[in-house]
Formats: sequence, structure tokens, C-alpha cells
Amino acid sequence: MKFLVLHGPNLNLLGTREPGVYGAQTLDDINQSLEKLAAGFGCSLIFFQSNSEGELINAIQGASADCDGILMNPAAYTHTSIAIRDALTAVALPCVEVHLSNIHSRESFRHKSLTAPVAIGQICGFGRDSYLLGLRALFNHVKSA
Amino acid sequence: MKFLVLHGPNLNLLGTREPGVYGAQTLDDINQSLEKLAAGFGCSLIFFQSNSEGELINAIQGASADCDGILMNPAAYTHTSIAIRDALTAVALPCVEVHLSNIHSRESFRHKSLTAPVAIGQICGFGRDSYLLGLRALFNHVKSA
Amino acid sequence: MKFLVLHGPNLNLLGTREPGVYGAQTLDDINQSLEKLAAGFGCSLIFFQSNSEGELINAIQGASADCDGILMNPAAYTHTSIAIRDALTAVALPCVEVHLSNIHSRESFRHKSLTAPVAIGQICGFGRDSYLLGLRALFNHVKSA
Amino acid sequence: MKFLVLHGPNLNLLGTREPGVYGAQTLDDINQSLEKLAAGFGCSLIFFQSNSEGELINAIQGASADCDGILMNPAAYTHTSIAIRDALTAVALPCVEVHLSNIHSRESFRHKSLTAPVAIGQICGFGRDSYLLGLRALFNHVKSA
Amino acid sequence: MKFLVLHGPNLNLLGTREPGVYGAQTLDDINQSLEKLAAGFGCSLIFFQSNSEGELINAIQGASADCDGILMNPAAYTHTSIAIRDALTAVALPCVEVHLSNIHSRESFRHKSLTAPVAIGQICGFGRDSYLLGLRALFNHVKSA
Amino acid sequence: MKFLVLHGPNLNLLGTREPGVYGAQTLDDINQSLEKLAAGFGCSLIFFQSNSEGELINAIQGASADCDGILMNPAAYTHTSIAIRDALTAVALPCVEVHLSNIHSRESFRHKSLTAPVAIGQICGFGRDSYLLGLRALFNHVKSA
Amino acid sequence: MKFLVLHGPNLNLLGTREPGVYGAQTLDDINQSLEKLAAGFGCSLIFFQSNSEGELINAIQGASADCDGILMNPAAYTHTSIAIRDALTAVALPCVEVHLSNIHSRESFRHKSLTAPVAIGQICGFGRDSYLLGLRALFNHVKSA
Amino acid sequence: MKFLVLHGPNLNLLGTREPGVYGAQTLDDINQSLEKLAAGFGCSLIFFQSNSEGELINAIQGASADCDGILMNPAAYTHTSIAIRDALTAVALPCVEVHLSNIHSRESFRHKSLTAPVAIGQICGFGRDSYLLGLRALFNHVKSA
Amino acid sequence: MKFLVLHGPNLNLLGTREPGVYGAQTLDDINQSLEKLAAGFGCSLIFFQSNSEGELINAIQGASADCDGILMNPAAYTHTSIAIRDALTAVALPCVEVHLSNIHSRESFRHKSLTAPVAIGQICGFGRDSYLLGLRALFNHVKSA
Amino acid sequence: MKFLVLHGPNLNLLGTREPGVYGAQTLDDINQSLEKLAAGFGCSLIFFQSNSEGELINAIQGASADCDGILMNPAAYTHTSIAIRDALTAVALPCVEVHLSNIHSRESFRHKSLTAPVAIGQICGFGRDSYLLGLRALFNHVKSA
Amino acid sequence: MKFLVLHGPNLNLLGTREPGVYGAQTLDDINQSLEKLAAGFGCSLIFFQSNSEGELINAIQGASADCDGILMNPAAYTHTSIAIRDALTAVALPCVEVHLSNIHSRESFRHKSLTAPVAIGQICGFGRDSYLLGLRALFNHVKSA
Amino acid sequence: MKFLVLHGPNLNLLGTREPGVYGAQTLDDINQSLEKLAAGFGCSLIFFQSNSEGELINAIQGASADCDGILMNPAAYTHTSIAIRDALTAVALPCVEVHLSNIHSRESFRHKSLTAPVAIGQICGFGRDSYLLGLRALFNHVKSA
Repeated sequence: MKFLVLHGPNLNLLGTREPGVYGAQTLDDINQSLEKLAAGFGCSLIFFQSNSEGELINAIQGASADCDGILMNPAAYTHTSIAIRDALTAVALPCVEVHLSNIHSRESFRHKSLTAPVAIGQICGFGRDSYLLGLRALFNHVKSA
Repeated sequence: MKFLVLHGPNLNLLGTREPGVYGAQTLDDINQSLEKLAAGFGCSLIFFQSNSEGELINAIQGASADCDGILMNPAAYTHTSIAIRDALTAVALPCVEVHLSNIHSRESFRHKSLTAPVAIGQICGFGRDSYLLGLRALFNHVKSA
Repeated sequence: MKFLVLHGPNLNLLGTREPGVYGAQTLDDINQSLEKLAAGFGCSLIFFQSNSEGELINAIQGASADCDGILMNPAAYTHTSIAIRDALTAVALPCVEVHLSNIHSRESFRHKSLTAPVAIGQICGFGRDSYLLGLRALFNHVKSA
Repeated sequence: MKFLVLHGPNLNLLGTREPGVYGAQTLDDINQSLEKLAAGFGCSLIFFQSNSEGELINAIQGASADCDGILMNPAAYTHTSIAIRDALTAVALPCVEVHLSNIHSRESFRHKSLTAPVAIGQICGFGRDSYLLGLRALFNHVKSA
Repeated sequence: MKFLVLHGPNLNLLGTREPGVYGAQTLDDINQSLEKLAAGFGCSLIFFQSNSEGELINAIQGASADCDGILMNPAAYTHTSIAIRDALTAVALPCVEVHLSNIHSRESFRHKSLTAPVAIGQICGFGRDSYLLGLRALFNHVKSA
Repeated sequence: MKFLVLHGPNLNLLGTREPGVYGAQTLDDINQSLEKLAAGFGCSLIFFQSNSEGELINAIQGASADCDGILMNPAAYTHTSIAIRDALTAVALPCVEVHLSNIHSRESFRHKSLTAPVAIGQICGFGRDSYLLGLRALFNHVKSA
Repeated sequence: MKFLVLHGPNLNLLGTREPGVYGAQTLDDINQSLEKLAAGFGCSLIFFQSNSEGELINAIQGASADCDGILMNPAAYTHTSIAIRDALTAVALPCVEVHLSNIHSRESFRHKSLTAPVAIGQICGFGRDSYLLGLRALFNHVKSA
Repeated sequence: MKFLVLHGPNLNLLGTREPGVYGAQTLDDINQSLEKLAAGFGCSLIFFQSNSEGELINAIQGASADCDGILMNPAAYTHTSIAIRDALTAVALPCVEVHLSNIHSRESFRHKSLTAPVAIGQICGFGRDSYLLGLRALFNHVKSA
Repeated sequence: MKFLVLHGPNLNLLGTREPGVYGAQTLDDINQSLEKLAAGFGCSLIFFQSNSEGELINAIQGASADCDGILMNPAAYTHTSIAIRDALTAVALPCVEVHLSNIHSRESFRHKSLTAPVAIGQICGFGRDSYLLGLRALFNHVKSA
Repeated sequence: MKFLVLHGPNLNLLGTREPGVYGAQTLDDINQSLEKLAAGFGCSLIFFQSNSEGELINAIQGASADCDGILMNPAAYTHTSIAIRDALTAVALPCVEVHLSNIHSRESFRHKSLTAPVAIGQICGFGRDSYLLGLRALFNHVKSA
Repeated sequence: MKFLVLHGPNLNLLGTREPGVYGAQTLDDINQSLEKLAAGFGCSLIFFQSNSEGELINAIQGASADCDGILMNPAAYTHTSIAIRDALTAVALPCVEVHLSNIHSRESFRHKSLTAPVAIGQICGFGRDSYLLGLRALFNHVKSA
Repeated sequence: MKFLVLHGPNLNLLGTREPGVYGAQTLDDINQSLEKLAAGFGCSLIFFQSNSEGELINAIQGASADCDGILMNPAAYTHTSIAIRDALTAVALPCVEVHLSNIHSRESFRHKSLTAPVAIGQICGFGRDSYLLGLRALFNHVKSA
């Protein structure tokens, strides 16, 4: 099994960006934790981060060729991108949406997700653990499909 | 470590209630899975299900005496109960909110959670796995607190 | 055939509560009228009134064991209870919603029903007759199903 | 006693129009059932169907001369016609509003009725039975007035 | 100078319809008062009342041939008819909108006029006087144009 | 009979202020026209203009001592002043609201009047004529009261 | 193949009505262009224009007997008529909605179409060409069905 | 004179629950202060606290037998319970609503009270003093009724 | 201790203004009652009433020099004046907001207070008692501060 | 004459993406059909597809150098991109907006187009035909300009 | 060149009012800084501060006699005063709106400005610098007009 | 000191794009004016324009390495980009937002800025001067920090 791990805008700054909100870990820390967990599952992961909505769409489209699912944190685009939602619907891969922070306790424009309705489910609020739990959820879903 | 597992209204019907939406497992199945996982963590669990908002509040208040956290699925009360939210704020125990179904792809009145803003985070859409992932999230949070 | 007749909050006060709005009959008067009509249909009725949302849900769940349908007046909970709606969906019994007063000519928060969309239909505005007409509707529906 | 039975736009197509939603009976079937029930009550009925808002208003106005009440299904005009509402208020005849389908489980623009607030009450969701129950309600109301 | 006086739905019932709201005068009384005032101005009037939106539009279109302006009370269609608004824009005759009652102190759905923005102005709340003042306003406007 | 004529904020600039919208006449021109018309009615008028909400309220309160009615153009305060509305309700004098321009064809924040619901009626869109028609309406109303 | 071409309210005034918005062509010009194009397709057309919502509904219902589709410009009724929408759903003929002007660049109440969701598609903004393109679309759709 | 003092959900936690918001006093402290004040008035008090909406309704209904008024803090149910509002209307006892905190400076969902419109008045923001002032208000009201 | 008692627009009319809503007492009656109560507390009071928003702001600003708190009834300005709110925030004196009537049972535009969020608390619905209770609340607050 | 044909995000997946919604044709199929039609008109076409909002803007800006118009399907960006709207306004080329599916019968967030108001017109719902009709519309518009 | 510098309500308290939000400078400090800058431009300034909406309107009207522009901070009236907006439109002097604080990061009722749409532009968030930059903007605008 | 000057989508077209709205100057003209002013301040500037949201985010992130602040005109992205807002929050550099046109007097979707709340302040409406004033504001802010 192989999964695309997709990181949205500004996640490359993790560790430096508002540590009070997002924690002190870097994106590499998170990716390594994911890799370790995936190894235990016998899965491989591909990582991609971009600040560009278009590149994220390209990556989603590309995943349909050789991936079994997508673990994604669309970050700010969660709330504004119908185009990413359409890409997810188009490739029809199982997808799990994760957020580091609890989006329900932040500004009201972060409460609504355009992408969650086309994902299997959503996990938010647990920092790095959101990703790790998301990978478990995705792995279990694909395994039992 | 000891956690309260709180099940909201109609969850006692699991397995019979709309299996297409909620899956074929009973609440007992879920509780046993949780117990097994908790055992691996060296945690104990207390289970409580009620269809009554007031009894759920009583249970939350009672948990403050001897529990280290709450894993809860407030079901329909997620969207209507300020009183449960207030109870969670009052006891100030770490709490993880879970939902079997993906609430973001259902009726619009299920998109808004009154309780999620006072929880650590929210997990939805993965059936029984929502609970198991939620227990992991809660355990990790309390352990690292 | 057997039906559950469910009366929501404050209906136990009928006859004393705002007679200008709800009429001078007591809940017993209504129940006796229903019983008489049901006898003519060869049906039996079970009556239950509660001011508690949770107990109403329990009664709905209990009806799935031995009832063929529900005649209900959820009163104030009509407009606030997603949990009752979920219980109705879960037991999947045919249900008719009735109201003594014309909810469309009262405060705007009474215009919207959360339960009507999962009922067969709704009857409002005819005082005791709302119940009697509702029983007819329910009986005909079940008979012809 | 004499009642006007008023059928709004597109109801002349009953039996052919979306049978899944409105049933297989024609408007004549419904009218005959009503006539039979009315006969039992010792009442006479006048039937009128029109696709024109103005003609429906004319019929309502005309009823004030020799009718004791109105049984009406304003169909689509339920949700858009202040003019029909004004006609009902003007003639001040008791009126019962009925709908074949459960308007609360359809598109949101069908949830709001402009005419129900000036009727005695509303019955919806029971197909042909909505009319028959409505006639009972109207007859009882006028008899006891 | 010649003006069309247009009366919308239910105004034919004046004198009988809710005298508390609309006064005890009939439409004929109003028309005669208008005729008398018009005579003083050296104007002639054409009167038209209909309950049908389409016929009102036909009348507006017809007025463009031989009228110098329109005095209209669109009644309930004031709040729902884009088609009448379009007709007024199309014929481009000066138009004055009048209402017997003060629409601003009634139900909120009567506060908004779709036709007033394409009229010269609006007069409401003065019973028969609304029409007489409206005729003066229209006459002065056309005279000074 | 004696009436207060009340002019709201910026009306002292008439003739210079946006002549395209408000016409070329000054406030004095309008007052003189009113005076002339009032003379014909055998009425006297008191004029008051202010840019201050408080002074307009004072004037309304003062009118209760010796006036039989109020002809007012509250201008911008029409849309924002609950205090002027309360003053009108408090003195309980018959009041007619007028506007030079057609407020329904301007910015949406001018469509809603806070004062019109407590006036007898409203006249807008006829320039100076709005005032003259308003005086007629007020005179007729008081005369026939 | 035979199609009904339906023209809504005020379209009979084309050529005289706001030529800046709707162009200088008359409805006859448009009908002749359509006829010519239809001839090329080997289709026949029936034309109907009315200012009355009810007559438009009658025409739609009548088309079900002998037409293969409907090309319609509901004009103002596009935005207010649930009854026309219901008629279209009832006859279940393929329908194409056209508008002369670009409704998206006009008043906000013209942005929403009640009829478009039950049509195959919508074409707006191209003057007479909207009709001609609409006929092509309808012909292609029916041919390939 | 005898009054019911009704405490809504989570008020049993006072003193421990968010002392920064609700103060350090326990519910017993408040009840004793009330008792002392009532003694000075020659009144007796009955106290009831519940986390259950249904039990609060039962208590309100029960008060009609032997109480002269209700002093209540419905807490979270203030904002969600039409059923409690209906109970208050049904028993028709004078009622004063109090809140420890200033609900107008908290989350927007706490700004709206469903129960205040059927109470005599509302007092909020003064901690324990809200109750004491409320008792004074209720006593004065009943004494002077 | 010294407090400013601030009365907003139209309160000078008390006793004459809508006695059904506001009671038969004059503002002087209220002021004398307040003075008597204040004397018992050993406090002095300054009274100020104005119909002008600006003068009320001046009075609030002036109070910062020699007052320990403000008891205010901003009347209509409660719902429209951000400027009064800003003045209260600027002087940072403890402030209690009172209303004679129950603003929650009146027009919806009176339900929202712009000033309450910056006051200690709000009391409404008790006529003259609202002021007296408000003075108690203010005195207790300042004493215990 | 030369036109830019602009395809928005995810349209490169046509033929594989949700064939039930968008049809089985690929983007190449559509482009070839367009080319064939354009040849008949004596026009040439440039094709551009991108998933990036910025690249679509670049393409629009580039078209101003050598194109006579734009045929575009902005796909998901239709509903979110003010930047594309601004680009269209800036280059001031005639533009026709097309959509494969009927956006009015899909999710409500697809009903509103930010770009249509600055286009000549919009065509939606006809699959590949939407493009072909759009090219006709654009060609006719430019030819007759 | 001569400009009116207009300060709205509560700005006279600058330096004492919420220094955390508005800074420690007094209004005199700001005026002196402005005077110095104006001197460099060869302009003279007139200063006016008032807490009264009416007086601010009077000042704006007065400026039309001898000023070339207005630099204003309408403070709280920015968000509530249509009357000040109308005054600005009436005098038709170039006007620059400034705010000390960043109104976009404060309460939502401060995000909307009623006066900015009739000003040349708006500057906010820079404390005293907002005024100095505003004077530059005004000077440049008038000089280049 | 060194600042990043960031120009959003379509600003590369300045001088050609709607000169009536944005003026006749090119982006180079503006940049040169800024450079000249910066030189006077002893500052250096880096310029970046892009039509891509992602590239603008990259530029903001890159500025954190060697810039002391950002002067930006996010153009259309001002109203739609949460991602740019997040980037600004992440790098935590002082930022000033400028707009050439007065966004408050344009379409309502341009009134709301997603980025202004995380900037120091906003300047709009002064054409090129908006940038020059913005640079002054930024320079003063950084100098005095």
C-alpha cells in the first residue's frame, strides 16, 4: 500500500510558525513519525508540500496513478478551495483530512471545511498526533475496503 | 489512568439503527474494542450511555472525581446542548469528541458542534475506528500533559 | 395493530394551560377519545407523556419492540430536538406528528419542525381533532403498507 | 353545509405527475372520495382547479356567497402567493390547508407556507388521505363553531 | 391628460374586506372620488381591477398606447411580482404607487416593494386619501414634465 | 389647527445639496409653499430644522403642548433613530412622514424606515410635492378624527 | 420533432421595451429566426407568449401531448414561480432555459433561477442568439437521447 | 408568600466551576443568602437544582400548586429550551430570570434568552447579587400585584 | 460614594409616555426613590437626563472626575449608540444598565444592547424597581471592589 | 479571428472524472470538436488548461496581445476567484463562460458565479455542447461588434 | 489651502482612554503634529471635536464656506451615522477618513464604515500617524485636482 | 532597513487596466516613486509581483529571512485568501496593506479584507499615494518599534 501525504500552505514553516498554536515540531519531524508508523503497517508514503492551490491539485491528480489513498492537511485551502474538493472527487481515492489545531475553537471562517464532505472523515486538534491518527484511519479503511 | 467513555442518545441502538450510516457493530462491540486497546495502554475505562441530556451532564460532573479524561460521542446533543458544553468547561477534564459518521457530509444542522470548541479535538467519519483513534488521542494527550 | 401515543412536554397540563390557545380538554379527555376511535379500528394504544427529552427517546426506542407506529405530539421538542428525530429514524416505525395549535400562526421559532421531515406527515391546528385525524392517518398508512 | 374544494396549479396532472411523489390517483379519484365522505356528513362540495393564481382568488372570493368553508391545496402557490392569503383573510371563511406530500421533507423553499397562518390548520404527507382528513377537520370545525 | 388607475388583487372586496384595516369604502366610492378630482384637473381616468397578475400586466402594457401615466395599488403583488415591475419599466410611463394601509406597520413581508423602485414615488397609510394624493402627485409630475 | 413641520439633518442645505437628487428648491421655498397651502386650510404651521437627533426629539416633545399633528422628514435619521420613533410614540400626535426622493430606489440602507411604523403613513419621491401632499394627508386625518 | 417555444411576461414588447437591455428585435423577428433554424433541423415549432403564469403552465402541460421538448424564456417568472417549475417537472419534457440579457450582471433578485434546476441547462446574455443556441442545445439533446 | 428558587444545569458545581467567571461561592452559600433575605421579607423559599431539562419543567409545574412566584437561573437552558418557556407560560406564575455572569459580554449564543420574554424581567452580571436582587424584584412584584 | 444617574431620550416624559408600558411614575418620582435609597447607603447621586446622544456622552465623560460609578438607562440609544459604549469604556467607571420595561418581550430591535457588554450587568422589566435594584447592584459592586 | 479557449482546474481529467456528471469525452475530444467548428468559422483557437489560478490569470492577460475573445470554463474557480474576474475586466476582451454540468442543479456553492457578471453571457448544462454553443456565441458577438 | 480637521466622539479623551488601544498621546499632541505638517505644506487647519452627531454635521456644513477639504475621524459615528455621510455628500468637499486603531481587527460592528464610501479614501491602524498620513493624502489630492 | 513590496494579481497591468479606476501609472512608475521615497528614509526595497497566490505566499515566507516589514497590495486575494493571511501571521513581520482604489465604494465583496486584521493598518483610495503613504507608515512603525 502506498499513500500520498499532502501538506497545504504554510505548513513548511512548522516549528517556527506560531508555536503556541501549531507546536514546536517541524514538518520533517511529522513526516519521520509518519514514515515510522507506515513502516510498521508495511506501507510506503510520498510527501508533498506546497503553498500553491494548483500544485496541490496536480499532486492529488498524480496520486491516482499509483497511490491507494491520501492523507492531507489542506490548511487554509480547507476553507476556500472548491478546486481541491473537485480534484478529490475526481480521483476518487479514499482521503483523510487532518488539522494540527482544533479548527472549531478558532476564527469562525475556519469552522467550515469544503473538503471534509468528500473525505472519509476528519481529525483535528491533536498536533502531530492528528497526522498519526489519520494515517491509522486511512490504513484501516483501505485494508478493510 | 482512567477515562470516562460517554455515549449520547440513540447510540444504544447501534447495530440496529441505520446500519448503512452507522455500521453493523453494537455498542458492546465498540466498548470491548476500546477496553482491549485501553488494556494495552494500561488504562481503565468507565462506560456510560444515556438518552438524557441531564444524565450525560451528571456523568461528566461525576467524572471529575476520579477520571483523567473523557472520550465522548454526544451524538445529537453535539449540535444542540450548551449545557453539556458548560459541563465540560466546568470539570475541565481533557476531552476528545468522536462521531461514527462524517458529520460534514450529512444534514447542515450536523455540521456545527457546540461541544468541539471546548474539547481537545474532534474525530469523525471512521465508524468504530473513530472511538479507537479518539482513545489513542486522549491517552497521548494525558500522558504528555 | 398497536400504536404508541406520545405526548411531549407540558401536555400533562392540558385543560389548565393557556386554554385560549390549547382548548379546555385534559390529556385524559384526548386519550379517551383516541381510545374510542382506536377501538373502532380494532387497534390498541399505549399512552406516554413526559417532560423529559430522554424519556421520550426511551419510549420511542421501546416502541420498536411491539408497536406498529407512533402518533406523537413532541410539543416544544418539535423545534429543538435532533435526538428525538434520530430516535424516530433509528426505530423506523411509521410516525405521524400532530399539534393542537396552528404552529404556523405562532412565534417564528415554532414554524420549523425538526421531526416532521422523518414523519409520514404532520397535522396541526385542530385541537383534539389533530390527534384523532392523526390516528386515522396512521392507521390507514399502516393498513395499506 | 357546503364547502369549496380548491386545487392549485398542476394538480390536474395527478396520476401522471411524478407518481413516486404524489401517488397514482387522479384528481377525479380524490374528488369522488371526498364527495362520498361529504355525503356521509350531509355536506355538499364544489370543486375547482386552476393553474392561475387569479382564478383561484376569484374562486375564494366567490365562495363567500354560498360556502361555509374552504378545503384547499394551494400547491406551489402555498409558498409564493400573498394574494391568495389576502383573499382568504378577506372572505373570512374557515379554511383547511392540505398537501399530498410531506412538504417538510422536500426542498427548503417548500417548508414555508404563506397561507397556513390564516387557515385553521394544515395537514400534509398522507396523499389522498390529506384531503379526506382535511374535510373531516373542516366539517368538525364548522359544526362546532 | 389620461391616466390608468390600476387596482390589484382583492381590492374588489373593499368595504367588506377587513374594514378595520382597509376602511368601509368600496372600490366604487374610491373610483368616484378619483373621477371627481380628475375632472377638476381636466383629466380623464380609466379604471381596471384584476386578481390576475397577467391581466394587470396586460393592462399596463395597454396603457402605453393612450395613457400619460399610471396610478396603481398593486396590493399583494407589490411584494412578489417582478413581472409587474418589468411591465412598468417596459412601458416607461410615469407611475405612482399607493396603498390604503401603512405597509410599514404590518407583517414584515409587506415592508418590501418590488415595484416602488421603478415608480416615481409611493404613498401609503391614508386609506382613500392615498389614492387622491397619488392622483395629485401623478398629475403634477406629468404636467411639469 | 396647528402643525409642527419638522425637517431632519442636512435639509437646511436644500437647493445646494445634490440638486439632481433633491431638486433646486430651498427649504424656505418649501416652507412658503406649505404655509400657503396651510392658509387655505385655515391651519398654522411651526417650522423646525435641526441636524441634531436630540433637538428633533425635543421639538417633537414640545409639540405635544400645542400642536395637532406633525409633518416630518426625518431624513437620514429615518433609518437609524429608535429615539425619534420613541418620541413620536410618546407624544401620540398624528404624524405623516415624507421624503423628497424615492427612498426605495436608493441605497438599500434607505429602504427601511424606523419611524414609518408609528406614523399614519409615508409619502416619498415627489420632491416638494411630498411635503404638500403630506400636509393634505395630515390635515384630512386630523379633521376627520 | 416538435418543440414548444415559450415566451414569458413582457416579451411581447420586445423591440420597444428597453432596447438598451433587450435589443431592437421584436418577438416575431426572434420567432422567424428560430423557425428558419428549426427548418434546417427538420423540426417544427409552436410559439406561445403570455403574461399570465397560469397560461404558461397550461401551455407547458399541453406540450406533453405532442411536443418533444420546450425552449423557454420564463422572463420575470424565472425568479418567482415554483408553479412553473412544478409544471416542468410534471410533464418531464426536456427543457432549455434562455434569457436575452445576462441575468448575472443585473439586480441580485435576477441571479437566482427557480426553473433552471429542472431544465437541462441555461443560456443567457446573447440576445436573440440565446434562443438560437438554446434551440440547437435542445435539438442535440433530444436527438441523442 | 412562598417562592420556588430554580437552578439550572451545572450550577451545582458553583465554587469549583470556572471561578473567574462565576465567582467562588457555592450554591449553598447563595441559597443561604437568599434564605436570610427572604426571612426579612417574611417569605419562605423552596430550592431545586437539576441538570435535566425535564426535571426543571416538572419543578415549574409543581410550583403552581403552592408557590407565588419563581426565581430562576435556567443557565444553559436559557438559550435552548422552548419547553421551559412553555412550562412558565403554562403555570402563569410571576417569574424573574437571573444570571450570575453578564451574558451580553460572552459568546453570542448566550445573548438570546428564550425564557426572558415570558418572565417579568431579567437580571444578569452581578454574581450572587443577581439572585438577591431578583428575589427583591419578585417579592415587590407579587406584593404589589 | 457618589454616582451619576443617567436617563436617556424620552425618559423626561415618564408618567405621560405610554403608561401601559412604562408605568405612571414620573422621572422625579424615580429620582426621589433613588435618592432615598442612596441616603440609606450613605451615597450621593447626580441626576442627568438628555435626549441628545452627545450630551449623554459629555455627562459620562464628566463623571470620571468625581463619580464612583454610573447607573444608566440609555433608553433607545441602548440599541444604536456605539459612541455611548465607547464613552463608557473610555472612563472605565463601573456601570449598571437598567430598563423599565422587559426589552426581551418587545420589538426585536430592542433585544440587542450595544452598551450592556461593557457594563457590569443589566436589569430590565421591573419599572421603577429596575433603577432601585440597579443602585443596589452598583453600590455593592463598588463597595466590594 | 483568434480565440483563447481556457479550461480551469480538473478539466484535464475529463473522461475519467465522474463520467456520470461530466460525460465520457476527454478534453482533447472537446478541443477537436471546437477546432472543427472554428475552422468552419474561419477562426483559429489557442487552448490552455491549468489547475493554477495564477496561470489562468497569466493566460487571460496574455490573450490581450493577439486574441479577439475568450471562451472559458473556469470550473471551480468560477465560484471563488475574484482575481480571474479582475483579469477579465482588465483585458476587456469579450468572454463567454461555459460549464459542462448544470451548475444550478448542484451544490448551492456552485450557483453563484463571480466571473459571469463580467462575461457576455453564460451557457451551462449541455456537456460538450456547452463549449460548441459558447464558441458560436462568441464568434457571433465578435463578428457583429 | 485650508482644511477642517474633524474629531468625533470620545476623541477628546485621547491619552486617558484605553491607551493600550489608542496610544498615550492627547488630541492636542495630534493637532500640534498636524499643524506642523500643514505649515510645511503651506496650509492652514481648523480643528473641531464634538461628541454630538449634530454638531459634527454643522461643522461639515460650515466647512463648505471656506475650506478645501476635510480630514476626519468620525470615531463611533463611522459605523452608525447616515446623517454624517449625507452631510459629506452634500458639501461635496474632498474628505479623508482616518482611524487611530485598525478597525478591521476589532469588534465586527467596527468593520463597516458608512462614511468611507463617500470619502476619497480611508487610513486606519497607525495611531497619530493615521492623521499625518491622512493630511498628506488630502493635501496631495487637492493640490493635484 | 529593508522592506518587501508585494503586488498581487493583475497589478502588472497597471496603466492599461481600467485607468478610470486605477489611474494611468504603471507598476514601474509606482515602484520608482517608492524607491525614491525609501532612499530618503535610508531603506532598501525588494519588489515582487505575482498573479499566483502560492508565489505570493512563498515571497512572504522568504521575506522573514532578511526583511524588516512588508508593504503589500494583495489585490483580489485580499478578499479570498486565508492562506496569505496565515503566511503573514506565520512570519510575524510588520505589514501594511494598501489599495489603489477605495474598496469601500466598490462591489460589496471588496469591502471585507481577510488580511487587514493581521496587518498594522490599511490605506486605500489614494492611487499611487496609497503605496507612498503605506511606506511612510511602515517605516515609522518599524523605526519606533
